[in-house]
Amino acid sequence: MSARAGIIVTGTEVLSGQIADQNGPWVAARLLELGVDVAHTTICGDRPRDLTAQLAFLADQRVDLIVTTGGLGPTADDLTVETVAAFCGLPLRADDVLAQQIEAIIRSWRRYAEVDELPDALAAAIAKQALVPDGALPIAPTGTAPGIAIAAAADRPAILILPGPPRELQAMWPAALATPAVAGVLARADDVEHRQLRAFGLSEPDLATTLRRAEQELPGFGALEVTTCMRGGELDISTRFPHADEQTYLDLKALLRQQYSTEIFSPDGTTLDDLLAAALAGATIATAESCTGGMVAARLTDRAGSSSYVLGGIVSYANSVKTDVLGVPAALIDEHGAVSEPVAAAMADGARAVTGADIAISTSGIAGPGGAVPGKPVGTVCFGLAVAGRATTTITRWLPGDRALVRTLATTVALHLVYRALVPA
Amino acid sequence: MSARAGIIVTGTEVLSGQIADQNGPWVAARLLELGVDVAHTTICGDRPRDLTAQLAFLADQRVDLIVTTGGLGPTADDLTVETVAAFCGLPLRADDVLAQQIEAIIRSWRRYAEVDELPDALAAAIAKQALVPDGALPIAPTGTAPGIAIAAAADRPAILILPGPPRELQAMWPAALATPAVAGVLARADDVEHRQLRAFGLSEPDLATTLRRAEQELPGFGALEVTTCMRGGELDISTRFPHADEQTYLDLKALLRQQYSTEIFSPDGTTLDDLLAAALAGATIATAESCTGGMVAARLTDRAGSSSYVLGGIVSYANSVKTDVLGVPAALIDEHGAVSEPVAAAMADGARAVTGADIAISTSGIAGPGGAVPGKPVGTVCFGLAVAGRATTTITRWLPGDRALVRTLATTVALHLVYRALVPA
Repeated sequence: MSARAGIIVTGTEVLSGQIADQNGPWVAARLLELGVDVAHTTICGDRPRDLTAQLAFLADQRVDLIVTTGGLGPTADDLTVETVAAFCGLPLRADDVLAQQIEAIIRSWRRYAEVDELPDALAAAIAKQALVPDGALPIAPTGTAPGIAIAAAADRPAILILPGPPRELQAMWPAALATPAVAGVLARADDVEHRQLRAFGLSEPDLATTLRRAEQELPGFGALEVTTCMRGGELDISTRFPHADEQTYLDLKALLRQQYSTEIFSPDGTTLDDLLAAALAGATIATAESCTGGMVAARLTDRAGSSSYVLGGIVSYANSVKTDVLGVPAALIDEHGAVSEPVAAAMADGARAVTGADIAISTSGIAGPGGAVPGKPVGTVCFGLAVAGRATTTITRWLPGDRALVRTLATTVALHLVYRALVPA
Repeated sequence: MSARAGIIVTGTEVLSGQIADQNGPWVAARLLELGVDVAHTTICGDRPRDLTAQLAFLADQRVDLIVTTGGLGPTADDLTVETVAAFCGLPLRADDVLAQQIEAIIRSWRRYAEVDELPDALAAAIAKQALVPDGALPIAPTGTAPGIAIAAAADRPAILILPGPPRELQAMWPAALATPAVAGVLARADDVEHRQLRAFGLSEPDLATTLRRAEQELPGFGALEVTTCMRGGELDISTRFPHADEQTYLDLKALLRQQYSTEIFSPDGTTLDDLLAAALAGATIATAESCTGGMVAARLTDRAGSSSYVLGGIVSYANSVKTDVLGVPAALIDEHGAVSEPVAAAMADGARAVTGADIAISTSGIAGPGGAVPGKPVGTVCFGLAVAGRATTTITRWLPGDRALVRTLATTVALHLVYRALVPA
């Protein structure tokens, strides 16, 4: 038993690179969690011929399910339903109940609440969005566009048509899974588990060497599908396996955790941000940032509820802010340079002093492209960590990449330093 | 004359939704700029059979060029070169010059600089990365992986193989365009111009209405391909047209600039960040951020050279930081609430006072999901703008979306407020 899917992302603005697609990755991740293998994702402009070609390609690849995203709007270049219906050889029918649902949604908007007759353009838009391929099942709109589920036939897979706005698509997902067309595919899906580890300070080649050893040593290793992904300085280790092979996964996990006891900070896929939020419980934190320019504070406050532990921070980009606001002695900067461990320490101490936080983390570095000095190449970043009741510590890292990457990696390093101060490996 | 391309993005981690692809959109945008139409983008896991199927699909669609990204690394699941070579019926040959280039790159890394013999695994990796399909042209590596250009044949298009890391791919792009295989396709590309306008505070439906009018009024409007894209609160208006139709574009541009004189802030596609950097010349800026938590400062310092005008900022997430560091009177917070125009004004004034900047911008809002109070729903954000020699001004905006979107939109609004203070519409 197994099921394979293909995903078609529609939209000229996606194909042309103007906007980044969020739907393909989201749908793929959800299908994989459900044990459905994703064989292909294709991206299509708003051209019926190209969409038809992609539908035919995926049908030819014998996928069991095609999921399309986008192209359900009211305008002339929203062509998905019409094109899919033609591909399936199904005539379109006007669904009156659906038309009433869509009209009710539009009338709930303030500007149309009191209008007796909707404008012609709007009435036409409703009529267009209420067209359904004959025999297909509409899925109630979560914006104004309904989804559509079409059962498999002899010569083609089941097709699930979803709207393009990510929030509408995600809101519709549970109802889409419940349609007979999709449920029939899920019934054939593999009983698959998906687990994740996260490591910091571990390289892909190092891990690859260990995995080759595990392949020799662990019976049944072949049942595990391990993929690794380096992003923002962290290595994500994802493993998919049939439920029956759980013990093999646990053996691999034990082996990796033994080998990389300091590097693996998340044994269950929990993100650093979540771990840090939990570790900070009851304590307060502040930042003093130079090269990261506010990114550490922004990432800390990205989480809802962060106001219970983030007091704030100082972006001391100019040396005058380091001295005047954080109280870093000018002589210290003169002697060691702004990018130095003594200055990073004084920045962290200063951030604690001015905000009253229990913990403060500082960054001072050379993000580039300019600014390198002898002994301090681009990518040199000094960190300071001040924790109430402990001596302030510092560390220097040489980070690779361009300005944006150095800043991103420095932000991640800063958060890991705080986390490891609270939860030692 | 015209040329069409297909893009194949490889990588199980992309197909499975674990990481967001940057290469497909980047390559598509570059090809469109060069007048090459992008017909399809497909995403493929690390499975040779699926990659072969996608190559066959694109060849079948009669594209003139296939660009592949990724799968050039040294590990076993990096299969692009081998699979493309098999698809083309070309045997692989070991390229000794290329092997020496790659070895020289690796020996430039500190840990291998002084080693006589490279480890076996590394030697094997070099040998793998130096394999080239017979008759194809290698492109010098910008990381460790070379690119490869394969000329078109009777039964298949030209194929350009590029590495997966976005920086390596982008660094290799100019050399890739110069290969005879790709240059031959570009020679057939349309002579197309691509222009951009950027607007703020303009909705897509509003613009659509104006474009329908322009279609009636402007002779030759049909030659213009206008696409619009809303992102981060700004509306990008992109137009592609044959060089001969430039006057029609200029007529459209004049019409739009007349209609939306305050909304269109960039008549030539220059980004807000670039415009702001130019407008700030000679002045200094600081931030006082609550709900944006450092994002405004981070965006200002994203640009190389920003140290000449960004002094820094205060992330005053907690009220204690607003009072203690920025000097906002506690009574003001008690009376009006932290999310209020009087507090936003005091924050901006405070940021100027403590940093000595000429200009300060502040944000205080309710990013959600919690925190709403009567009269101040989630999305309410107050801004303060303090400019030397002027009265401090404030404004309140109600921004849509979830926490992340509210914060992103608030950051954009903040930068627009600063820009419009320096360069009135």
